[in-house]
Amino acid sequence: MHRVEHNRAPVEPQFIRFDEVRAFELAQGVTGRPLFGAAVMLNLIEFEPGADVPLHSHPHEQLGIVLRGMQALVVDGVAHELGPMEGYVLPGGVEHSAYCGPEGATVLDVFQPVREDYRERWQAL
Amino acid sequence: MHRVEHNRAPVEPQFIRFDEVRAFELAQGVTGRPLFGAAVMLNLIEFEPGADVPLHSHPHEQLGIVLRGMQALVVDGVAHELGPMEGYVLPGGVEHSAYCGPEGATVLDVFQPVREDYRERWQAL
Repeated sequence: MHRVEHNRAPVEPQFIRFDEVRAFELAQGVTGRPLFGAAVMLNLIEFEPGADVPLHSHPHEQLGIVLRGMQALVVDGVAHELGPMEGYVLPGGVEHSAYCGPEGATVLDVFQPVREDYRERWQAL
Repeated sequence: MHRVEHNRAPVEPQFIRFDEVRAFELAQGVTGRPLFGAAVMLNLIEFEPGADVPLHSHPHEQLGIVLRGMQALVVDGVAHELGPMEGYVLPGGVEHSAYCGPEGATVLDVFQPVREDYRERWQAL
Protein backbone atom coordinates (compact mmCIF):
# COMPACT_ATOMS: atom_id res chain seq x y z
CA MET A 1 0.00 0.00 0.00
CA HIS A 2 2.76 2.43 0.87
CA ARG A 3 4.45 1.95 -2.47
CA VAL A 4 1.23 2.67 -4.34
CA GLU A 5 0.60 5.84 -2.40
CA HIS A 6 4.11 7.17 -2.73
CA ASN A 7 4.04 6.63 -6.46
CA ARG A 8 0.70 8.22 -7.08
CA ALA A 9 0.69 11.24 -9.33
CA PRO A 10 -0.80 14.59 -8.36
CA VAL A 11 -4.39 14.84 -9.55
CA GLU A 12 -6.23 18.01 -10.52
CA PRO A 13 -9.99 18.49 -10.20
CA GLN A 14 -11.71 16.72 -13.08
CA PHE A 15 -15.25 17.03 -14.44
CA ILE A 16 -16.21 14.53 -17.12
CA ARG A 17 -19.10 13.02 -19.06
CA PHE A 18 -18.83 9.24 -18.85
CA ASP A 19 -20.31 8.90 -22.34
CA GLU A 20 -17.26 10.78 -23.64
CA VAL A 21 -14.80 8.45 -21.87
CA ARG A 22 -13.53 5.73 -24.17
CA ALA A 23 -14.55 2.22 -23.14
CA PHE A 24 -12.24 -0.76 -22.69
CA GLU A 25 -13.17 -4.43 -22.62
CA LEU A 26 -13.27 -6.10 -19.21
CA ALA A 27 -14.62 -9.42 -20.44
CA GLN A 28 -16.59 -10.56 -23.46
CA GLY A 29 -19.67 -8.33 -23.58
CA VAL A 30 -18.53 -6.23 -20.59
CA THR A 31 -16.95 -2.80 -21.05
CA GLY A 32 -15.76 -0.14 -18.60
CA ARG A 33 -15.33 3.64 -18.72
CA PRO A 34 -12.84 4.66 -16.01
CA LEU A 35 -12.28 7.84 -14.02
CA PHE A 36 -8.96 7.87 -12.18
CA GLY A 37 -8.31 9.71 -8.94
CA ALA A 38 -5.10 9.51 -6.95
CA ALA A 39 -5.95 6.64 -4.59
CA VAL A 40 -9.36 5.54 -5.83
CA MET A 41 -11.06 5.12 -9.21
CA LEU A 42 -14.54 4.76 -10.64
CA ASN A 43 -15.38 2.38 -13.48
CA LEU A 44 -18.77 2.66 -15.18
CA ILE A 45 -19.49 -0.81 -16.45
CA GLU A 46 -21.91 -1.96 -19.12
CA PHE A 47 -22.93 -5.61 -19.35
CA GLU A 48 -24.48 -6.77 -22.59
CA PRO A 49 -27.45 -9.07 -22.04
CA GLY A 50 -26.24 -12.42 -20.78
CA ALA A 51 -22.59 -11.38 -20.34
CA ASP A 52 -20.53 -12.49 -17.37
CA VAL A 53 -17.17 -12.01 -15.68
CA PRO A 54 -15.28 -15.20 -14.77
CA LEU A 55 -14.13 -15.99 -11.24
CA HIS A 56 -11.17 -13.80 -10.28
CA SER A 57 -9.68 -11.82 -7.42
CA HIS A 58 -7.49 -8.74 -6.94
CA PRO A 59 -5.87 -7.14 -3.92
CA HIS A 60 -7.89 -3.94 -4.43
CA GLU A 61 -10.93 -3.24 -2.31
CA GLN A 62 -14.03 -3.00 -4.52
CA LEU A 63 -17.32 -1.26 -3.80
CA GLY A 64 -20.12 -0.52 -6.20
CA ILE A 65 -23.73 0.18 -7.00
CA VAL A 66 -26.04 -1.22 -9.65
CA LEU A 67 -27.65 1.54 -11.71
CA ARG A 68 -29.69 -0.45 -14.26
CA GLY A 69 -30.69 -4.07 -14.70
CA MET A 70 -29.42 -6.87 -12.49
CA GLN A 71 -25.84 -7.81 -11.60
CA ALA A 72 -25.21 -10.94 -9.56
CA LEU A 73 -21.96 -11.20 -7.62
CA VAL A 74 -21.02 -14.76 -6.74
CA VAL A 75 -18.89 -15.16 -3.61
CA ASP A 76 -18.16 -18.53 -1.98
CA GLY A 77 -20.62 -20.13 -4.38
CA VAL A 78 -23.50 -17.86 -3.30
CA ALA A 79 -25.07 -15.57 -5.94
CA HIS A 80 -26.06 -12.14 -4.63
CA GLU A 81 -28.47 -10.71 -7.19
CA LEU A 82 -28.47 -6.91 -7.06
CA GLY A 83 -30.90 -4.53 -8.73
CA PRO A 84 -30.85 -0.76 -9.16
CA MET A 85 -29.68 1.17 -6.10
CA GLU A 86 -28.24 -1.92 -4.45
CA GLY A 87 -24.61 -1.76 -3.39
CA TYR A 88 -21.76 -3.99 -2.33
CA VAL A 89 -18.37 -4.16 -0.68
CA LEU A 90 -15.83 -6.81 -1.68
CA PRO A 91 -12.67 -6.76 0.44
CA GLY A 92 -9.40 -7.18 -1.44
CA GLY A 93 -8.51 -10.78 -2.21
CA VAL A 94 -12.08 -12.12 -2.18
CA GLU A 95 -12.69 -14.35 -5.21
CA HIS A 96 -15.81 -13.38 -7.13
CA SER A 97 -17.53 -13.74 -10.46
CA ALA A 98 -20.42 -11.77 -11.92
CA TYR A 99 -23.30 -12.23 -14.30
CA CYS A 100 -26.20 -10.10 -15.38
CA GLY A 101 -29.83 -10.55 -16.26
CA PRO A 102 -31.43 -10.77 -19.72
CA GLU A 103 -31.54 -6.97 -20.11
CA GLY A 104 -27.84 -6.51 -19.23
CA ALA A 105 -26.75 -4.13 -16.49
CA THR A 106 -25.08 -0.80 -15.80
CA VAL A 107 -22.88 -0.80 -12.70
CA LEU A 108 -20.56 1.71 -11.07
CA ASP A 109 -17.51 -0.03 -9.62
CA VAL A 110 -15.08 1.66 -7.24
CA PHE A 111 -11.55 0.36 -6.66
CA GLN A 112 -9.00 1.31 -4.03
CA PRO A 113 -6.14 1.68 -4.79
CA VAL A 114 -6.35 2.55 -8.48
CA ARG A 115 -6.27 -0.51 -10.78
CA GLU A 116 -3.03 0.24 -12.61
CA ASP A 117 -3.73 -2.77 -14.85
CA TYR A 118 -6.92 -1.01 -15.99
CA ARG A 119 -5.09 2.27 -16.50
CA GLU A 120 -2.50 0.56 -18.70
CA ARG A 121 -5.13 -1.20 -20.81
CA TRP A 122 -7.19 1.98 -21.14
CA GLN A 123 -4.23 4.20 -22.01
CA ALA A 124 -3.18 1.71 -24.69
CA LEU A 125 -6.52 2.07 -26.54
CA MET B 1 -2.51 8.01 5.41
CA HIS B 2 -0.54 5.25 7.12
CA ARG B 3 -2.26 5.79 10.42
CA VAL B 4 -5.68 5.49 8.82
CA GLU B 5 -4.79 2.27 7.06
CA HIS B 6 -3.27 0.62 10.10
CA ASN B 7 -6.35 1.40 12.14
CA ARG B 8 -8.87 0.17 9.66
CA ALA B 9 -11.09 -2.67 10.76
CA PRO B 10 -11.50 -5.91 8.81
CA VAL B 11 -14.48 -5.71 6.49
CA GLU B 12 -16.62 -8.61 5.29
CA PRO B 13 -18.41 -8.73 1.94
CA GLN B 14 -21.56 -6.63 2.16
CA PHE B 15 -24.64 -6.51 -0.09
CA ILE B 16 -27.16 -3.78 0.71
CA ARG B 17 -30.16 -1.87 -0.57
CA PHE B 18 -29.48 1.83 -0.26
CA ASP B 19 -33.17 2.52 0.41
CA GLU B 20 -32.81 0.42 3.57
CA VAL B 21 -29.77 2.37 4.81
CA ARG B 22 -30.74 5.07 7.27
CA ALA B 23 -30.08 8.60 6.07
CA PHE B 24 -28.15 11.31 7.91
CA GLU B 25 -28.20 15.04 7.31
CA LEU B 26 -25.23 16.53 5.47
CA ALA B 27 -26.65 20.04 5.18
CA GLN B 28 -30.12 21.55 5.24
CA GLY B 29 -32.10 19.63 2.60
CA VAL B 30 -29.21 17.28 1.81
CA THR B 31 -29.08 13.72 3.19
CA GLY B 32 -26.67 10.83 2.71
CA ARG B 33 -26.91 7.03 2.91
CA PRO B 34 -23.42 5.61 3.49
CA LEU B 35 -21.78 2.29 2.69
CA PHE B 36 -18.46 1.83 4.49
CA GLY B 37 -15.59 -0.24 3.16
CA ALA B 38 -12.17 -0.46 4.79
CA ALA B 39 -10.37 2.34 2.95
CA VAL B 40 -13.12 3.83 0.83
CA MET B 41 -16.81 4.61 1.26
CA LEU B 42 -19.84 5.39 -0.86
CA ASN B 43 -22.42 8.00 0.11
CA LEU B 44 -25.70 8.15 -1.82
CA ILE B 45 -26.80 11.75 -1.53
CA GLU B 46 -30.21 13.28 -2.06
CA PHE B 47 -30.59 17.04 -2.58
CA GLU B 48 -34.02 18.52 -2.06
CA PRO B 49 -34.91 21.07 -4.72
CA GLY B 50 -32.85 24.21 -4.22
CA ALA B 51 -30.64 22.78 -1.46
CA ASP B 52 -26.94 23.52 -1.28
CA VAL B 53 -23.76 22.59 0.60
CA PRO B 54 -21.66 25.53 1.86
CA LEU B 55 -18.00 25.99 0.96
CA HIS B 56 -15.84 23.47 2.80
CA SER B 57 -12.85 21.17 2.38
CA HIS B 58 -11.59 17.88 3.78
CA PRO B 59 -8.33 15.97 3.43
CA HIS B 60 -10.19 13.03 1.83
CA GLU B 61 -10.11 12.52 -1.91
CA GLN B 62 -13.64 12.72 -3.33
CA LEU B 63 -14.97 11.27 -6.56
CA GLY B 64 -18.56 10.96 -7.66
CA ILE B 65 -21.24 10.68 -10.29
CA VAL B 66 -24.56 12.46 -10.70
CA LEU B 67 -27.42 9.99 -11.09
CA ARG B 68 -30.46 12.31 -11.31
CA GLY B 69 -31.00 16.03 -11.71
CA MET B 70 -28.18 18.58 -11.67
CA GLN B 71 -25.43 19.09 -9.11
CA ALA B 72 -23.06 22.01 -9.53
CA LEU B 73 -19.66 21.83 -7.85
CA VAL B 74 -18.06 25.23 -7.32
CA VAL B 75 -14.25 25.23 -7.22
CA ASP B 76 -12.16 28.41 -7.32
CA GLY B 77 -15.32 30.39 -7.99
CA VAL B 78 -16.19 28.37 -11.11
CA ALA B 79 -19.48 26.41 -11.12
CA HIS B 80 -19.25 23.03 -12.85
CA GLU B 81 -22.85 21.98 -13.57
CA LEU B 82 -23.10 18.20 -13.84
CA GLY B 83 -26.04 16.18 -15.09
CA PRO B 84 -26.76 12.44 -15.03
CA MET B 85 -23.76 10.24 -15.82
CA GLU B 86 -21.31 13.09 -15.34
CA GLY B 87 -18.47 12.49 -12.89
CA TYR B 88 -15.85 14.36 -10.94
CA VAL B 89 -12.62 14.10 -8.98
CA LEU B 90 -11.82 16.52 -6.17
CA PRO B 91 -8.36 16.04 -4.66
CA GLY B 92 -8.14 16.24 -0.88
CA GLY B 93 -7.94 19.76 0.46
CA VAL B 94 -9.70 21.45 -2.46
CA GLU B 95 -12.34 23.89 -1.21
CA HIS B 96 -15.73 23.33 -2.83
CA SER B 97 -19.40 24.07 -2.45
CA ALA B 98 -22.37 22.48 -4.19
CA TYR B 99 -25.87 23.37 -5.28
CA CYS B 100 -28.56 21.60 -7.24
CA GLY B 101 -31.20 22.46 -9.79
CA PRO B 102 -34.93 23.03 -9.23
CA GLU B 103 -35.69 19.29 -9.30
CA GLY B 104 -33.03 18.42 -6.72
CA ALA B 105 -30.38 15.80 -7.44
CA THR B 106 -29.25 12.28 -6.60
CA VAL B 107 -25.47 11.88 -6.42
CA LEU B 108 -23.12 9.07 -5.50
CA ASP B 109 -20.09 10.41 -3.63
CA VAL B 110 -16.96 8.33 -2.98
CA PHE B 111 -14.45 9.23 -0.27
CA GLN B 112 -10.97 7.88 0.40
CA PRO B 113 -10.11 7.29 3.19
CA VAL B 114 -13.40 6.64 4.97
CA ARG B 115 -14.99 9.80 6.44
CA GLU B 116 -14.87 8.82 10.10
CA ASP B 117 -16.81 12.01 10.90
CA TYR B 118 -19.66 10.64 8.74
CA ARG B 119 -19.44 7.22 10.38
CA GLU B 120 -19.72 8.78 13.84
CA ARG B 121 -22.71 10.91 12.88
CA TRP B 122 -24.41 7.99 11.12
CA GLN B 123 -23.79 5.53 13.97
CA ALA B 124 -25.22 8.04 16.45
CA LEU B 125 -28.59 8.14 14.64
